[in-house]
Amino acid sequence: MAARYDFASDNTAPAAPEAMAALAAANAGFTSAYGTDPVTARAADLVRAWLDADAEVRFVASGTAANALSLATLCRPFEAALAHRHAHVCTDETGAPGFFGHGLGLVGLPGASGRIDPAALVEALAAPDVSHRQGPAALSLTNATEYGTVYSAAALEALVRPAKAQGLGVHLDGARLANAVAAGFDVTAAARLGVDLMVIGGTKAGMPPTEAIAILDRTLARRFDARLKQAGQLPSKGRFYAAPFVGMLDDGAIVRHAAHANAMARRLAGLMPFPVRHPVEANGLFVEMDEPALARLHAAGWFVYRFLDGTVRFMCSWATTPQAVDDLGAALNAIA
Amino acid sequence: MAARYDFASDNTAPAAPEAMAALAAANAGFTSAYGTDPVTARAADLVRAWLDADAEVRFVASGTAANALSLATLCRPFEAALAHRHAHVCTDETGAPGFFGHGLGLVGLPGASGRIDPAALVEALAAPDVSHRQGPAALSLTNATEYGTVYSAAALEALVRPAKAQGLGVHLDGARLANAVAAGFDVTAAARLGVDLMVIGGTKAGMPPTEAIAILDRTLARRFDARLKQAGQLPSKGRFYAAPFVGMLDDGAIVRHAAHANAMARRLAGLMPFPVRHPVEANGLFVEMDEPALARLHAAGWFVYRFLDGTVRFMCSWATTPQAVDDLGAALNAIA
Amino acid sequence: MAARYDFASDNTAPAAPEAMAALAAANAGFTSAYGTDPVTARAADLVRAWLDADAEVRFVASGTAANALSLATLCRPFEAALAHRHAHVCTDETGAPGFFGHGLGLVGLPGASGRIDPAALVEALAAPDVSHRQGPAALSLTNATEYGTVYSAAALEALVRPAKAQGLGVHLDGARLANAVAAGFDVTAAARLGVDLMVIGGTKAGMPPTEAIAILDRTLARRFDARLKQAGQLPSKGRFYAAPFVGMLDDGAIVRHAAHANAMARRLAGLMPFPVRHPVEANGLFVEMDEPALARLHAAGWFVYRFLDGTVRFMCSWATTPQAVDDLGAALNAIA
Amino acid sequence: MAARYDFASDNTAPAAPEAMAALAAANAGFTSAYGTDPVTARAADLVRAWLDADAEVRFVASGTAANALSLATLCRPFEAALAHRHAHVCTDETGAPGFFGHGLGLVGLPGASGRIDPAALVEALAAPDVSHRQGPAALSLTNATEYGTVYSAAALEALVRPAKAQGLGVHLDGARLANAVAAGFDVTAAARLGVDLMVIGGTKAGMPPTEAIAILDRTLARRFDARLKQAGQLPSKGRFYAAPFVGMLDDGAIVRHAAHANAMARRLAGLMPFPVRHPVEANGLFVEMDEPALARLHAAGWFVYRFLDGTVRFMCSWATTPQAVDDLGAALNAIA
Repeated sequence: MAARYDFASDNTAPAAPEAMAALAAANAGFTSAYGTDPVTARAADLVRAWLDADAEVRFVASGTAANALSLATLCRPFEAALAHRHAHVCTDETGAPGFFGHGLGLVGLPGASGRIDPAALVEALAAPDVSHRQGPAALSLTNATEYGTVYSAAALEALVRPAKAQGLGVHLDGARLANAVAAGFDVTAAARLGVDLMVIGGTKAGMPPTEAIAILDRTLARRFDARLKQAGQLPSKGRFYAAPFVGMLDDGAIVRHAAHANAMARRLAGLMPFPVRHPVEANGLFVEMDEPALARLHAAGWFVYRFLDGTVRFMCSWATTPQAVDDLGAALNAIA
Repeated sequence: MAARYDFASDNTAPAAPEAMAALAAANAGFTSAYGTDPVTARAADLVRAWLDADAEVRFVASGTAANALSLATLCRPFEAALAHRHAHVCTDETGAPGFFGHGLGLVGLPGASGRIDPAALVEALAAPDVSHRQGPAALSLTNATEYGTVYSAAALEALVRPAKAQGLGVHLDGARLANAVAAGFDVTAAARLGVDLMVIGGTKAGMPPTEAIAILDRTLARRFDARLKQAGQLPSKGRFYAAPFVGMLDDGAIVRHAAHANAMARRLAGLMPFPVRHPVEANGLFVEMDEPALARLHAAGWFVYRFLDGTVRFMCSWATTPQAVDDLGAALNAIA
Repeated sequence: MAARYDFASDNTAPAAPEAMAALAAANAGFTSAYGTDPVTARAADLVRAWLDADAEVRFVASGTAANALSLATLCRPFEAALAHRHAHVCTDETGAPGFFGHGLGLVGLPGASGRIDPAALVEALAAPDVSHRQGPAALSLTNATEYGTVYSAAALEALVRPAKAQGLGVHLDGARLANAVAAGFDVTAAARLGVDLMVIGGTKAGMPPTEAIAILDRTLARRFDARLKQAGQLPSKGRFYAAPFVGMLDDGAIVRHAAHANAMARRLAGLMPFPVRHPVEANGLFVEMDEPALARLHAAGWFVYRFLDGTVRFMCSWATTPQAVDDLGAALNAIA
Repeated sequence: MAARYDFASDNTAPAAPEAMAALAAANAGFTSAYGTDPVTARAADLVRAWLDADAEVRFVASGTAANALSLATLCRPFEAALAHRHAHVCTDETGAPGFFGHGLGLVGLPGASGRIDPAALVEALAAPDVSHRQGPAALSLTNATEYGTVYSAAALEALVRPAKAQGLGVHLDGARLANAVAAGFDVTAAARLGVDLMVIGGTKAGMPPTEAIAILDRTLARRFDARLKQAGQLPSKGRFYAAPFVGMLDDGAIVRHAAHANAMARRLAGLMPFPVRHPVEANGLFVEMDEPALARLHAAGWFVYRFLDGTVRFMCSWATTPQAVDDLGAALNAIA
């Protein structure tokens, strides 16, 4: 029996039909390169409209690079970004921020279920600036978080405001932004609150590999294309990265699909025989399973990961079917 | 009248049907991520078969990054790569080798029509190793070259042998490898001669954005995935980068399309009223045009670039039609 | 009343007469630059004799740079060094390893009183090598440790052996090596056990600014001068960095002075009214003092730092006088 | 017969008595570290007075690092510094700017005898800003130049003004600033004209290893100590780097010694039987000698270097004696 990867991550899914159709449509005729083509222009307009922000928008291949370049834009090598200590930039990107940022530091902050504890942020901001440590220059947020929870606009504001007050830049890792929006996050809040750079996930939202970078603080845009080119993130055939966003933003498919993914996570929660450890607000479910139980699940053909906090993670996506959820639920109950 | 980009570059073309069909076929069901999927395995097998080499193969998004990471694999920051002074890594990648290689140096060598002069290489290799200069640790070659010429296996050997004899690593930028092969280059020579890392262009060969890295010296492969991940070049949805290679390598479409592109360049040469400055061996044509002539051509709606050596470059691709060549030929003759 | 810095650090002391005399003696006539002079050769011989090792030796200006360059020699950017989580490289060097090592990671290990817990090392070495985390390539040790304790040769071996067995390189930060030796550490053990790169502190040992790098694994020495030059650590007037080592190694002054510093720390321990929290094996004393007590001590004119683990640190040096210790002891008892 | 290094460079000389006396005087008692001590404060005051500028001043160990950090302060990795193509930062520092600046580019400009041709600068500034090349963000000047010539304040202004007009930062490498001043350069012009960062050479001016960085644009000073610390250039025992400047600036010894060095170069020019190729304005002499002649000179025991432009370089310093000049002159005439 081949292993099933349906719930291993939201990047094991294929791309959604809306994205693929737009890709196919864009693949016609000759066009100018490096993001100067009409498809890229249209996609950027759609992103701006979605965010209700007059941002510069770029489409790149990698979320890891997009996040790391954002932090490198906001921090110098002898400075640090503050982030949740289990944020993707801290734990899952092989030190990419330090590589793209030439040694820039990451300061991991605590907080329940992936959301930064505002008191911990205030404490970090209050630390004296000394030359033998990398002082904070940026706050990095993730919405939806690594643990499937979602910041409301108000919760985001409670973190952004003190950071901005102290002159920090703000980066938002939106690898699962669509899931946050489907869960009620007002996406226009990012620009309004002063987020400077936002990475909008395409890949996990159901697109072929593509991520958008919204440069909300346009003063950061000078020579940004040179920054991207040097870092291998200025695609020559730009339309291939822009088209999926056209297909998914044009009629709201991005949020519709994310709402489905979130619903599948809730459906799975309803069937779950193991204790659920974090609020199920987006498309992930984190449960307490010991090693023998996880081994039984793997033996039953369902591949999932043990996560940073020791829980086992189940991710849903646009492509998760109710049947698959029910099948997994049955398998879980059989091995529980 | 909208500008025509047919001849501006070989990255202004759409993707070929074989690549798109393979992409669509790969986009089915759930699969494991980060290059562990069956499509990636199949594509790697096809690359190995094409090269007749037991190489590790990776599929990445960016040729700029692939080249720069290759050089960073071969050179330490206080060392240098030798390359043709007009090579893409030296002139068109915004210093990417220095960024990915933490300041590694590039030493530009002369040579007619984009091919390194073997005597200049020997002279560079003979320079004394002093601590205040970055000594050579790699030789970077490009085939087909920036000026549309092609190294034969023998010509390549004349450069690789002295470099290897002195302990340098060898990188081959094959952004247009298919065009070189279509022009007669024996692609199996790379492994046989001791090339260590080869970047095989997908994008310019008619694929959606994708490049293959063949790690011919497998001792360089340790933790290569971590290297790629940190650099934003380990795609989660790996099948999207591998599938186009499956479609194009499976039945030889990659070379068939490149042969067409090369033929279109020759066809254009036959119509060209301006002096052609480099041998037309692959898919590019470099001609002498003064500024007023170029301005008239632009005014006539054909967009092309003036290149590093002062010539004007016309690139053909898999998608270039004989009709387009003839139309351009007519336009050129009208403004000559 | 001017603040007294006698116990703030061992870098607040002046340079010892043996070092200054050698400096003055070396400052005569013209000599060749960049470490090719006879004084440098003599100092290197003395280091080799002290270590009983056929090492390449370099003299540089900065311990921070020497440590960071050592780690950059042993780790690639997508790899990590394992170190005590309170080691100087982890906490007090503004991320220098990441800067000199282009984003290389540091993994902080626990352990009482600054010594790495061998079990924690074994656990770190056993972690699976995955592409999304920086796998270990080096072990970084510090002797004497940040908390004034000393590794015996046997204790060092218990850490070095498993690291070497797994192919890691080993770096030893010997900013206070002389204090360790004065406390009984057999300095010849470093080479014997397989330490690859050792930084030998001159500054804290009572010299003008200078540090020695012993390249015990000579295969790492190729182009090391170019590495140093690029990093601003190949001094043109090399004799100024070598001469102090000549003065201090020639007749054993380096250990004699360190033994005095260690004795002063023990003397202070005997007078200390606050609880001492770590074994006093070298030249530092770490005590439990609350903020009001520390404020009273500062008000009494004695400047010392609160350290990483919350204790207050008192450092002794070659220049610490018994009278100063007794004065400080009296002041502490007055405010306790 | 031991080789004589008197004329090989100005860093083969010992340190001047004024510098050594100040060093000895500063080496008394305990003091605070990392540049917070009174000697450093005094030296910074003297630098400010000399420059007639309200600059932040730091004292560091390495001119290579000081230059590279200055360029890294002014340029981002995807930007470039414009410099004379034979400037020290371009040719003699093993790519240090790229290492400290994470791949920042250097654009070499032409100009006779080490001075940048203003027309070449204007042309470089006029180049279009494209994403595939590193656009200029800084102008790097050297005074006195690598070829022993000196920019007047007016000549400097002719370069600084167009650079500043286009928003570039300006760095001045003053490794031999004292020689320029002794040759008539008005040192207060640097601040007045808008130089942002200036490195003032101590080492070549006759001090033990030390260089001053004057941060003339104080907005660049934020977290500069963290920048220095991370880069291994924030010495703990700061007084050792500051004291020589106190000794040499207090009574003008720095310029007095430089005037002597310049006079020795002129004296040598008067005796030189080989053609002198650059104006002798500072302390260096560049002459045309073929290889056999140079070999004869080396055989006669005088060590000097062949330089970048093919000339042979003779450098004088504060310690060059008239007798040595006359001896060398005799040797040259004997082998001419």
